[in-house]
Amino acid sequence: MRTISYDPANASIQMIDQTQLPARFEILELKDLDQLITAIKDMAVRGAPAIGIAAAFGVALAGKLSAASSFSAWERELHDASARLLDARPTAVNLRWGQEKILDHLTTLQGLDTTSAQNALDAYVQGMADEDIEINRTMAWHGAQLLPDRGTVIHHCNTGALAAVDYGTALGVIRCAHEMGKRIHVLVDETRPRLQGARLTAWELEQYGIGYDLICDGAAGYFLQNGEVDAVLVGADRIASNGDVANKIGTYMLALAANASAVPFYCVAPHSTFDLKLDQGSDIPIEERDAREVLSLKFGEQAIAPDGASARNPAFDITPQHLISAFVTEAGLIHPPYREAIKATIDTKG
Amino acid sequence: MRTISYDPANASIQMIDQTQLPARFEILELKDLDQLITAIKDMAVRGAPAIGIAAAFGVALAGKLSAASSFSAWERELHDASARLLDARPTAVNLRWGQEKILDHLTTLQGLDTTSAQNALDAYVQGMADEDIEINRTMAWHGAQLLPDRGTVIHHCNTGALAAVDYGTALGVIRCAHEMGKRIHVLVDETRPRLQGARLTAWELEQYGIGYDLICDGAAGYFLQNGEVDAVLVGADRIASNGDVANKIGTYMLALAANASAVPFYCVAPHSTFDLKLDQGSDIPIEERDAREVLSLKFGEQAIAPDGASARNPAFDITPQHLISAFVTEAGLIHPPYREAIKATIDTKG
Repeated sequence: MRTISYDPANASIQMIDQTQLPARFEILELKDLDQLITAIKDMAVRGAPAIGIAAAFGVALAGKLSAASSFSAWERELHDASARLLDARPTAVNLRWGQEKILDHLTTLQGLDTTSAQNALDAYVQGMADEDIEINRTMAWHGAQLLPDRGTVIHHCNTGALAAVDYGTALGVIRCAHEMGKRIHVLVDETRPRLQGARLTAWELEQYGIGYDLICDGAAGYFLQNGEVDAVLVGADRIASNGDVANKIGTYMLALAANASAVPFYCVAPHSTFDLKLDQGSDIPIEERDAREVLSLKFGEQAIAPDGASARNPAFDITPQHLISAFVTEAGLIHPPYREAIKATIDTKG
Repeated sequence: MRTISYDPANASIQMIDQTQLPARFEILELKDLDQLITAIKDMAVRGAPAIGIAAAFGVALAGKLSAASSFSAWERELHDASARLLDARPTAVNLRWGQEKILDHLTTLQGLDTTSAQNALDAYVQGMADEDIEINRTMAWHGAQLLPDRGTVIHHCNTGALAAVDYGTALGVIRCAHEMGKRIHVLVDETRPRLQGARLTAWELEQYGIGYDLICDGAAGYFLQNGEVDAVLVGADRIASNGDVANKIGTYMLALAANASAVPFYCVAPHSTFDLKLDQGSDIPIEERDAREVLSLKFGEQAIAPDGASARNPAFDITPQHLISAFVTEAGLIHPPYREAIKATIDTKG
């Protein structure tokens, strides 16, 4: 099943509740925008492509629930819904990308009655979801060429089916290589604080029958230094014009370690993750999340930190472009020098 | 109170049980060598200097419990005890250092009756413990000069009083700077998998009234890159002749990140942590511990990984000497080029 789907007939969005995995596989059914925004903020759905499509579904759902009697009133409501969704999480640009696509599309629906416009919008967002899967499969095929048979790769966070509508970005590459018959072993960064590697990526790899070992984030350097790793694969939440990448916290240190051992470091991301409005990584807003995500862990039955401990919790970091060996996109690889190559490759209107 | 102490009158070793902190402050009372070896393997006591002294106490305790009627039989038993202790953990060289000191000392006791020899040995190991504290205070004073007032430092693992008999190595430096009136803020790496940063260092900093924020290990690069950090301080488990350092897993990636941001990276360690028998870091044996240390964490009430997940768990990594700005020892700072400077400074007979 897809990570997220939209059911216009029942005016609902369904999603796998990623806060419950791997212990429980539960489906959330969201019936309004508030529920969706909460699900995005609480990371029941996460991953840049998944957030982009979830928010697109949110605008369509808002349209479905609207009682507006005129197209212009309906369109205004959708713009309001869109503005609220854009505030849900600041770093992943796919959210904005999806909203821009939808708001652009609305302008083509002018003159329709609201029912016809709604039907057209429903079809449009379903098309976006289908396209997400298609793009991921294409990216994965390009990336899979880079991996050797019997290769060992390090993977950070979760970039699989759960981070998208289906199939995945960096994990899609691993999956595609596996489907091509390459024997790939994955060292899975557990990815503190939310442990998306341990909880989600390990769970996905079990489904696909791909061999893996979980490792602590700080251990990646050890395996790279020992010559046990052929490539490092990560996704992205936003990529600036110069190729600097915002991705899950820990990506930057992983890139430094790959670089120090001359192991290729690939960033797998669709065109919708590139933000040509930003000159460089330092322009990307970094979300700092609740300290409780760091402090709430249990070691055995014990709290991991003293009562009243304080913590800082930046959710993303910036990997400078010079540490990235290549980008894998749906149009193939992008090699340095990145500013020119990205400009030449990325059609930001998707 | 001291982290470890030896009570000859009661033939017992006392130690703070570090597996129970910060939830419970409990004292283990160990009555024989088996109990001590278990405590070392299970990390009820950990930290290179603490392990070195704990194992020294262990030989004295074995002597105390001995029924040998001749010095040579008694000495043979102590050599056997020493061999068993040396196997408890492979990476920290302080363990071997302590054993060599004791076995050397035994040769000076030849000719004494076993009671007199035992009394002399008891006094000798108490002297080693006292000296550990003295050395830490001296190192701390040297290191504290390096930290600016209102400085922010990143600290990895636990190198405080709990990692030694008392006071600490890298954390001793922070503590001394604080006692000198410098306002130091510590970003505490939580230090997966055993979370010594979150569980032990945060707990110690609370005792000392030093401000801190806990961070995930993967977040250190973010703070370094943002210019928020004045220095990084770590301890060591073994240092090779060329200055390569074995220390808690994650140290290497932290050193790379400090280096990339031109932030000084200091390694604080007594002479007993230098192993001049080894040419370089790749000669240092790295302990790989039970995968359950990685897998047993709980996220809320949930297991963090799927049932049957596998993991790899190297406990240490090697930081190459070129990433280290200086060593802080009881004789002051050691600057590059390290091979020459270490040879000139370190008296391995302690």
